[in-house]
Amino acid sequence: MGERQQFYETRRVIKYRQGEIVQLDDNIVNEIPLTLMLNGEEFATLVCSPVMEKELVIGFLAGEGIISDPDDIKDYFYREKQRVVWIETFNAVPQMDTFLGRNFASCCGKGRPSLYFLNDQDNVRPVIGDLTIPAETLLELMRRFDAESDIFKTTGGVHSAALADKDRIIARYDDIGRHNALDRIMGYKFLNRLDTGGTVVFLSGRISSEMLIKTARIGSPVLISRSAPTGLAVDYAIQYGITVAGFARGAGFNIYCNEERISGL
Amino acid sequence: MGERQQFYETRRVIKYRQGEIVQLDDNIVNEIPLTLMLNGEEFATLVCSPVMEKELVIGFLAGEGIISDPDDIKDYFYREKQRVVWIETFNAVPQMDTFLGRNFASCCGKGRPSLYFLNDQDNVRPVIGDLTIPAETLLELMRRFDAESDIFKTTGGVHSAALADKDRIIARYDDIGRHNALDRIMGYKFLNRLDTGGTVVFLSGRISSEMLIKTARIGSPVLISRSAPTGLAVDYAIQYGITVAGFARGAGFNIYCNEERISGL
Repeated sequence: MGERQQFYETRRVIKYRQGEIVQLDDNIVNEIPLTLMLNGEEFATLVCSPVMEKELVIGFLAGEGIISDPDDIKDYFYREKQRVVWIETFNAVPQMDTFLGRNFASCCGKGRPSLYFLNDQDNVRPVIGDLTIPAETLLELMRRFDAESDIFKTTGGVHSAALADKDRIIARYDDIGRHNALDRIMGYKFLNRLDTGGTVVFLSGRISSEMLIKTARIGSPVLISRSAPTGLAVDYAIQYGITVAGFARGAGFNIYCNEERISGL
Repeated sequence: MGERQQFYETRRVIKYRQGEIVQLDDNIVNEIPLTLMLNGEEFATLVCSPVMEKELVIGFLAGEGIISDPDDIKDYFYREKQRVVWIETFNAVPQMDTFLGRNFASCCGKGRPSLYFLNDQDNVRPVIGDLTIPAETLLELMRRFDAESDIFKTTGGVHSAALADKDRIIARYDDIGRHNALDRIMGYKFLNRLDTGGTVVFLSGRISSEMLIKTARIGSPVLISRSAPTGLAVDYAIQYGITVAGFARGAGFNIYCNEERISGL
């Protein structure tokens, strides 16, 4: 763990403005391919921000159902120079062709915002948890989440996801990919065997159907974003019993379903 | 073609603000699963905006190398109610398991902003084209592109992509998924057998490595966005000979590589 590399690097940029140009060094967001070797075989390559790779890799594998218990992880190491993560598991995991045959859908579905098979939802169950949270507590947590995002918002191009309970933000991740940010939350929950029944997921970006399904897999009963949900995400939220709130900015937000978990309305 | 359904639908929303709630009907962006049946077999499901499905489906298949000529398409029809597209081709296309074995990478890579195999780039070649375009022309086209995006920007959550030459915007698509928007441009180029050597691609969102690779497949020598590129996207742009400009807003933009195509600097 730890931020071994930076979110940004410096590059030469030509700035054009009204006929004038200036050459300077400017920050540009880093994006790296991170190859995952599982029990000696190449398994996948994630494109991501070059920080805290463990939560991402483990969150991706746990979300896919490839590993189901942290104790299954026999060995984990990251060769930063090669950008390769090596993972050994105690129990056999599906071979690539089995994974492909069984999980092509899931692979593309979980990963891609626009391509999946419908059986991607096979292993998704309604969330369990009797959380109720006051509206003003949600807003206060959102303000803290926003404040921590400022460094990324101003330099452009990083998405944020956080997991919170009623009292505090428990974990928070940033990544060039919004799916990655939520996969990292999954990794944190999995590695820490966290009971998520009383938690809320905060997002900086839009709530698409896939972000909703990832939240259902994490098990959080409330999902709130600064941005808008899609109609399909709200349909799934009703199906999986997740409270969805959007446009959480300043003094208010919109609630799209399962509003009974939010008190003080 | 044609916008058979709308980008938005009306849903009941509870608006919370400073202790007060209001229930009203509000616009929420549509997202649908669109299943693609290729020669009678289920091939993939795209999650997308429910408009102009043909460019998206064909663009996706052409970008994957599944179909290589518009004349290969024997039959195409869309069952809107079932949200299923049926495509018959004259020539055999890879069966699912072949596709999986060969193109798992490509599938996830093209689709997912965060998961691919490195051989995803196998069929990407440097762009060909001796386009030079004045900086002020680029800005004027960007203003037109932005103006047309206003309806989507204000209601939230739709990405835009356009293809232009020096004189005009040739094609423009909006979609809840930014990858889809660019896949639609690919479909337009493919279906119209367009020579893209003199064209520019405009994007509303960030230029990730995958958006760069899609642009290389489309064959446009210039890619410009209102938002930022990633470092990896700039690396690929240098490799494939694509001019990358970002932060195109108001009176200026930043150029990250291959600036010789932009005149008037």
